[in-house]
Amino acid sequence: MRQSPFDELRHALDRDGTDSPEINGVRADIGRLARCGVPEIVYCRGKPVESIASACERLAGESRRVVATRCDAATSERVRELLEGTGVSITFDVEASAMIVAGPDAQQPSGGGVVGLLTAGTSDWPVAAEANLIAGEAGCTVHAFRDVGVAGLHRLVQPLEALIEQEVDAIIVAAGMDGVLPSVVAGLVDVPVIGLPTSTGYGHGGGGEGALTTMLQSCAPGIAVVNIDNGVGAGAMAALIARRANRVRSQSGASD
Amino acid sequence: MRQSPFDELRHALDRDGTDSPEINGVRADIGRLARCGVPEIVYCRGKPVESIASACERLAGESRRVVATRCDAATSERVRELLEGTGVSITFDVEASAMIVAGPDAQQPSGGGVVGLLTAGTSDWPVAAEANLIAGEAGCTVHAFRDVGVAGLHRLVQPLEALIEQEVDAIIVAAGMDGVLPSVVAGLVDVPVIGLPTSTGYGHGGGGEGALTTMLQSCAPGIAVVNIDNGVGAGAMAALIARRANRVRSQSGASD
Amino acid sequence: MRQSPFDELRHALDRDGTDSPEINGVRADIGRLARCGVPEIVYCRGKPVESIASACERLAGESRRVVATRCDAATSERVRELLEGTGVSITFDVEASAMIVAGPDAQQPSGGGVVGLLTAGTSDWPVAAEANLIAGEAGCTVHAFRDVGVAGLHRLVQPLEALIEQEVDAIIVAAGMDGVLPSVVAGLVDVPVIGLPTSTGYGHGGGGEGALTTMLQSCAPGIAVVNIDNGVGAGAMAALIARRANRVRSQSGASD
Amino acid sequence: MRQSPFDELRHALDRDGTDSPEINGVRADIGRLARCGVPEIVYCRGKPVESIASACERLAGESRRVVATRCDAATSERVRELLEGTGVSITFDVEASAMIVAGPDAQQPSGGGVVGLLTAGTSDWPVAAEANLIAGEAGCTVHAFRDVGVAGLHRLVQPLEALIEQEVDAIIVAAGMDGVLPSVVAGLVDVPVIGLPTSTGYGHGGGGEGALTTMLQSCAPGIAVVNIDNGVGAGAMAALIARRANRVRSQSGASD
Amino acid sequence: MRQSPFDELRHALDRDGTDSPEINGVRADIGRLARCGVPEIVYCRGKPVESIASACERLAGESRRVVATRCDAATSERVRELLEGTGVSITFDVEASAMIVAGPDAQQPSGGGVVGLLTAGTSDWPVAAEANLIAGEAGCTVHAFRDVGVAGLHRLVQPLEALIEQEVDAIIVAAGMDGVLPSVVAGLVDVPVIGLPTSTGYGHGGGGEGALTTMLQSCAPGIAVVNIDNGVGAGAMAALIARRANRVRSQSGASD
Amino acid sequence: MRQSPFDELRHALDRDGTDSPEINGVRADIGRLARCGVPEIVYCRGKPVESIASACERLAGESRRVVATRCDAATSERVRELLEGTGVSITFDVEASAMIVAGPDAQQPSGGGVVGLLTAGTSDWPVAAEANLIAGEAGCTVHAFRDVGVAGLHRLVQPLEALIEQEVDAIIVAAGMDGVLPSVVAGLVDVPVIGLPTSTGYGHGGGGEGALTTMLQSCAPGIAVVNIDNGVGAGAMAALIARRANRVRSQSGASD
Amino acid sequence: MRQSPFDELRHALDRDGTDSPEINGVRADIGRLARCGVPEIVYCRGKPVESIASACERLAGESRRVVATRCDAATSERVRELLEGTGVSITFDVEASAMIVAGPDAQQPSGGGVVGLLTAGTSDWPVAAEANLIAGEAGCTVHAFRDVGVAGLHRLVQPLEALIEQEVDAIIVAAGMDGVLPSVVAGLVDVPVIGLPTSTGYGHGGGGEGALTTMLQSCAPGIAVVNIDNGVGAGAMAALIARRANRVRSQSGASD
Amino acid sequence: MRQSPFDELRHALDRDGTDSPEINGVRADIGRLARCGVPEIVYCRGKPVESIASACERLAGESRRVVATRCDAATSERVRELLEGTGVSITFDVEASAMIVAGPDAQQPSGGGVVGLLTAGTSDWPVAAEANLIAGEAGCTVHAFRDVGVAGLHRLVQPLEALIEQEVDAIIVAAGMDGVLPSVVAGLVDVPVIGLPTSTGYGHGGGGEGALTTMLQSCAPGIAVVNIDNGVGAGAMAALIARRANRVRSQSGASD
Repeated sequence: MRQSPFDELRHALDRDGTDSPEINGVRADIGRLARCGVPEIVYCRGKPVESIASACERLAGESRRVVATRCDAATSERVRELLEGTGVSITFDVEASAMIVAGPDAQQPSGGGVVGLLTAGTSDWPVAAEANLIAGEAGCTVHAFRDVGVAGLHRLVQPLEALIEQEVDAIIVAAGMDGVLPSVVAGLVDVPVIGLPTSTGYGHGGGGEGALTTMLQSCAPGIAVVNIDNGVGAGAMAALIARRANRVRSQSGASD
Repeated sequence: MRQSPFDELRHALDRDGTDSPEINGVRADIGRLARCGVPEIVYCRGKPVESIASACERLAGESRRVVATRCDAATSERVRELLEGTGVSITFDVEASAMIVAGPDAQQPSGGGVVGLLTAGTSDWPVAAEANLIAGEAGCTVHAFRDVGVAGLHRLVQPLEALIEQEVDAIIVAAGMDGVLPSVVAGLVDVPVIGLPTSTGYGHGGGGEGALTTMLQSCAPGIAVVNIDNGVGAGAMAALIARRANRVRSQSGASD
Repeated sequence: MRQSPFDELRHALDRDGTDSPEINGVRADIGRLARCGVPEIVYCRGKPVESIASACERLAGESRRVVATRCDAATSERVRELLEGTGVSITFDVEASAMIVAGPDAQQPSGGGVVGLLTAGTSDWPVAAEANLIAGEAGCTVHAFRDVGVAGLHRLVQPLEALIEQEVDAIIVAAGMDGVLPSVVAGLVDVPVIGLPTSTGYGHGGGGEGALTTMLQSCAPGIAVVNIDNGVGAGAMAALIARRANRVRSQSGASD
Repeated sequence: MRQSPFDELRHALDRDGTDSPEINGVRADIGRLARCGVPEIVYCRGKPVESIASACERLAGESRRVVATRCDAATSERVRELLEGTGVSITFDVEASAMIVAGPDAQQPSGGGVVGLLTAGTSDWPVAAEANLIAGEAGCTVHAFRDVGVAGLHRLVQPLEALIEQEVDAIIVAAGMDGVLPSVVAGLVDVPVIGLPTSTGYGHGGGGEGALTTMLQSCAPGIAVVNIDNGVGAGAMAALIARRANRVRSQSGASD
Repeated sequence: MRQSPFDELRHALDRDGTDSPEINGVRADIGRLARCGVPEIVYCRGKPVESIASACERLAGESRRVVATRCDAATSERVRELLEGTGVSITFDVEASAMIVAGPDAQQPSGGGVVGLLTAGTSDWPVAAEANLIAGEAGCTVHAFRDVGVAGLHRLVQPLEALIEQEVDAIIVAAGMDGVLPSVVAGLVDVPVIGLPTSTGYGHGGGGEGALTTMLQSCAPGIAVVNIDNGVGAGAMAALIARRANRVRSQSGASD
Repeated sequence: MRQSPFDELRHALDRDGTDSPEINGVRADIGRLARCGVPEIVYCRGKPVESIASACERLAGESRRVVATRCDAATSERVRELLEGTGVSITFDVEASAMIVAGPDAQQPSGGGVVGLLTAGTSDWPVAAEANLIAGEAGCTVHAFRDVGVAGLHRLVQPLEALIEQEVDAIIVAAGMDGVLPSVVAGLVDVPVIGLPTSTGYGHGGGGEGALTTMLQSCAPGIAVVNIDNGVGAGAMAALIARRANRVRSQSGASD
Repeated sequence: MRQSPFDELRHALDRDGTDSPEINGVRADIGRLARCGVPEIVYCRGKPVESIASACERLAGESRRVVATRCDAATSERVRELLEGTGVSITFDVEASAMIVAGPDAQQPSGGGVVGLLTAGTSDWPVAAEANLIAGEAGCTVHAFRDVGVAGLHRLVQPLEALIEQEVDAIIVAAGMDGVLPSVVAGLVDVPVIGLPTSTGYGHGGGGEGALTTMLQSCAPGIAVVNIDNGVGAGAMAALIARRANRVRSQSGASD
Repeated sequence: MRQSPFDELRHALDRDGTDSPEINGVRADIGRLARCGVPEIVYCRGKPVESIASACERLAGESRRVVATRCDAATSERVRELLEGTGVSITFDVEASAMIVAGPDAQQPSGGGVVGLLTAGTSDWPVAAEANLIAGEAGCTVHAFRDVGVAGLHRLVQPLEALIEQEVDAIIVAAGMDGVLPSVVAGLVDVPVIGLPTSTGYGHGGGGEGALTTMLQSCAPGIAVVNIDNGVGAGAMAALIARRANRVRSQSGASD
């Protein structure tokens, strides 16, 4: 049965739900995956490693998976040491600079739809990799093609046709500098496009501001945008879209 | 059978498709609905009324519908006069400041999914109405609730529960000033949220810049954003998401 | 014989050239066409009509032509009255909001090369028309195509092929909103592209700022940019490039 | 008896007050606590350690306490060495990156009211800790709750109810990224809210600019804001409000 | 007995409170005065007069008072006509461009403390007048002095001494252009200062941006700031501070 | 005998000077000419005409002169009517959009030095005229040359040599758009240059922002800058410099 | 015979051209020199050295040359090691921080025209050197003069006369801080000027923003601009202009 | 006899002056002190030490002095080594991070007037020290007082009275954060004030932008501003003003 979006809040007000105690400065929101369709994500930058570790441990619990982003290898290693003996397993994704912490009984994520991922240039990959990871953790299958920017338009042909053939439910397009690629893609397909500006580029409009603006000003409807370098946001949005389509598929036994 | 996103471009390069002649400065893109899932939209501001009229006429053709946005009543009236006798029918939507021009054999749009629409304040409605119109023209059913901003959080309860009960495929949240509402909504539901900042508000961060920034910086994953006052973009994005889910439903004969 | 770029300055310092007296607040620079290859241009906005008229009269003289830009029809009419009986002839270009004032013995401009001009949308034309006028006044032939923006990429094919067949020496690409078109064009041709951002568009990056940034951030080398709505600058730059190529042609009797 | 705000200035003009000599580039304002209700605060960043030490020594004097902010552990250690033998005692607050220097006869601060302090996320604590310290030094009792941001709204319930039960005189709400929490709190309580934006967050509106703008644009009246990361300012403002209420309480022997 | 800040939300979730129906696009928040200590305020700019009128009528009810801001005389007149016969009484404040609508049994506001109000220049008065009105409607006594900016510092002496003698609980300081006055005042008193930047001024930092920045950057602790021209916000913040102090006074029978 | 800069403040604190009463929202600073070397200036924009009139009347008094800037002809006329019979005489300067109000016994200003004034273009004159007026009212002789911008560098020769021959004490250089002229002038002379950016120009850096930035970034030392369109500031700064040199001249009976 | 700009795209759509496989995240665009007149350029910053190496190797192939920019000496050395034995030859340009990788049969570039290059200051050289390198790689002869900024205008005379005597087809003018030099040059010559702002300078408008704005706002027509520090863009634009003129020369056997 | 500002340019055009050869990328402007009243200044940041050394050597020559700014101790030491044996003497000013290089016969600077220098805070001294140095090198006497900001207004009394007693010709006021001090000073004296914003401060308006804006928006006429941290510019402007007054004094035998 469908639940109300306010169930957790209602329980908190009624004092009959599980409380959210603060541990090491973190008040873990363990119901997020159920409520919002996306697991709680720990943003590591600027947090003491003890906070990161205890947040991950509490969020992973017995059977959940949690993603810690903006996490370098050293931090990941340190967390691994701190959580030794707790039963969680830790995987570090070097491309996405992220760490997955899984409870002892956690299962592989599944149940999502199909997401396409394009990058305009080679330098956009670290950000796109974060999106890739999040969409995967939300159970989606991701098809990614890199370096298909419009400076050499012919490079886009094969990858975009491949995505359409895969019947992707959403396409994330990561681009820095001029951020032109999402406009071109959205002018060609009937799939929702999520513009993911990256901080590649220098000078006026550098640091991704130019790319963000281009995507917001796009003449081609069917684009929505997340913030610069926000791979988490792009991955989560794509996953929500794709999970939705997939749920319909599942409910009806449809297969693509 | 699934077509390639490059079919029109391929035809143009092969000179075997229909050419796009320029008429009154407009080169109509009549294949956009088929290609991109959203009808071509004529942005009226700054265009001579003759350009608007001939663009609408060519785009509507025999059996299509076209939306002309940022169109005041006087312009609409003038277009009606210019197109008298061509067989098109014209509807003016005063709330959205938009005009629908339909060819003589055009049908009511259908085939989309279900879209939710919330506004934080009363002043956000004109922009939200544009999104409403576009989603409707793309065949979606839209459920809208106005003035549910977080300054009085209890006002959000009933509308948001209603949207979830309607199983909306996407929720557009229009907000100006502090732009806080989309973050709150995205923290409560597992439906993709499209943030639509409006130019309500003055002073630092006024004109919608503050609302846009809030939405881009949202701590709650599952939000993507369109530009300030871009009701067209929000409506189109929501429609693409909802149409996708609906197509799956239709393919499988599913009912929710 | 080739002259020094400092000849007029040298004459001024030696007191043996023609002085530049101030008349009605204007100190006319009548040698600019000879020195810089572009006629002096009178920017009308914010100037009293008497200043405009006397500047035009002095600049046109017996045999020169001068362009007055950002000039509405009423101003043009008023100048015509003020200069009645002076022998100058006045042409008003309604699309470019500009006025050409020619001395009684002035000849049609000639001697330039071939310039291409593309606009992404219909609304970009007023700015592009200014560029068109200036390049024409500098003696160039201009081939223009309107509304070929990338939201419908197939519309670009025929116009761009036509420009290349015309062997244009430079291409001006006017675009507002996302300003994507110059990047796409520069990725396809080996002709210098002059990006001309227009103030079309609203919201974040509106008023042409987004288009300017996109062009400055372009991944495709071979683009240089003028300021937002600066049709004069784009036309002058294109003309200087094209005149140069043409001069070589003329010197050698070459024909394309 | 109530004094004039101009007493010190009057004394300076009459040459009958204590002069403010410059020592090591610092002209200490030893009357600030009496005049303004907040102790003089030494901002350490960019100052030579000798200036910091002599400023602290002079400000602490026999019986006062001074706070040195933006002070790392090494600087604190160095100051301790420089002031060895002067009788001052030094406490370093690692969370707030601040140092308290107390004269030999200085007493614990007292006499303030009750201040609430909330942070939206874990990363906001260092800034909030600075506010905490300053309010404490001004004699207030502070009740703090961390990580109660609206991405999981239910986490706010218990902390906010606790603050209201404590009858806090003002609530400082520290938040980075989207800066949404102060708006939500101000919509729920009748206590003055001091928005304290923190420089958490990246991309457009990063570095706290987005959070600042959100708070300035808040739809809920009853919020005033200090600059990004300005824990000192937030703590001082809260303390002035709370001291005022407390003074009334004391004058009348009231107890809550 | 003290209530929870979540009472209205709890009632909404439990479906046992009064619902907030939408009328003419407005969902009135009639509990705001009780919950937040400030009456609901209708921001008129950009709203249809019918929405304004029905919002005011519903908010005023039998015995409440509501303020409608950014309201010109014509709008006020039109609302008066629309509400004729409903029993509400309407007062238009020409200086504050605001309108007070009071239900038939509404009483004069009372119960607040004492608020000081200073303006740097003559042109800051319209904004300050809005703050004046709001603080008054929240039951405070306001003492105002105009044109005391630091370009002639001696003008500040008498007004500031007067405010201190009146034992004001908070001081609102309105200033445009360089926005210097709040810093000077906060350096002289131990009363919380609310900086109210106004949009007076032109050029770089014009429109109030410079004044806002100055106040945020103030070297004198004890200032918090509201947005440019936000007289409502300044008045509400001052009122919450003053009401608090006054409540303590009342509870204990204290008199100043 | 030389007085203290604090004399008026000292008198105010001692309650033995003339008080500054508020009349119509204005607290006139009648000692400014004596204290600061520049007459009090009434900025008219956004002030009610009654305030302007009573400020002018009080400031002019028996024998002083006051300047009212940003004053259109209609306002001037209205003030003239309001002050009819008071004995003041009013002169309207149409180029500077300013009005001089002189008391019945006021004398022509004198005693200043010599100021140079250059404008880059014709459109810069209205702003430069304001500077011209203020410097004249401070008793300086002003030598002005218009339209000498660097697009035609030879036009600068004669005017600049003339200024140096006149032994100007300071040069105001007004320029909009690229704001290049002050840099060129400061690279040629040993006289202090006051950069006066004007709001001429459009697009990126328009409204004078580009000109201001150019002047602040100037590679040629010896330039200081006032805000965009701030003719009053430029005139006052030049006058203070020139008056100083002239006072030395007068004290010693020197003649240039 | 002249080819269509769409040939590569046509081949990609027809599946009969060479495909663009992704290797190490790079999809090399080997046809760029033929299509766009400028070799593919590898931007090194933020890319793993393996990606750089394999991109360079593939782009150089048997007989092509590729430029890798923003490349420090260490990266260059590392690439040299990785490509040992592949037959490519590597040259590191320390001034331009760039590396040229040439295939074993690659020839020296030739066939371009003549380009002038001026820098305003010494610090602009690294950026100008990048432009120098690119124009050279496109086959142009470059004449460069450094440190000729307008703070000492006489320094410009000899270099500019020299460039005109060399009959340059385009002049790149690199300038930071106030960015004044391009305006002065464009006011003196009839050659297209490419403004190249550099990130020299600090404070307001620092990092090249001021220089960029000055160039965009230039009063002298005949300037187009590339982004801050974009030596590649300036060199490519100049090369396209000069190659064009040279091609005409070559076609006709003309010699200058 | 008075010379023309164009003499050096005239000589360059006539080829009869000393040429400006480029050495190590620097084209020394050895006539600047004579022409502009300020010695040539070498800005060291971003320049190779060889360029700095050879520029200093050439500029110092036999009998001149040159200032090298933004120069750390290591660079200074390295230059000293490179210029060993050339006869120049080098002094490093650690507070101003600057180096004075004097030719063997160079004399102490003299002939300037009297300059006042105030800093609002301790952290403003490094920038103020640069101004101090430049004014000294231009022959002025400088009276400096530190840490007199308005947060403790009484600290300003004695220093400002001292400056007026010294009959300073100009006052430089350095201030960061809110930048309020110049406005207060200019409201009290009749001496030209040069606002010198420093990059002290963080958050919104940090890095000196807030201070710059405050000074540009100042309500007190008689302030002109240089760029953030531009001690050179402030020192040069003050020196030009003071030298002028002093020259008049000298010409007439006047003594202060």
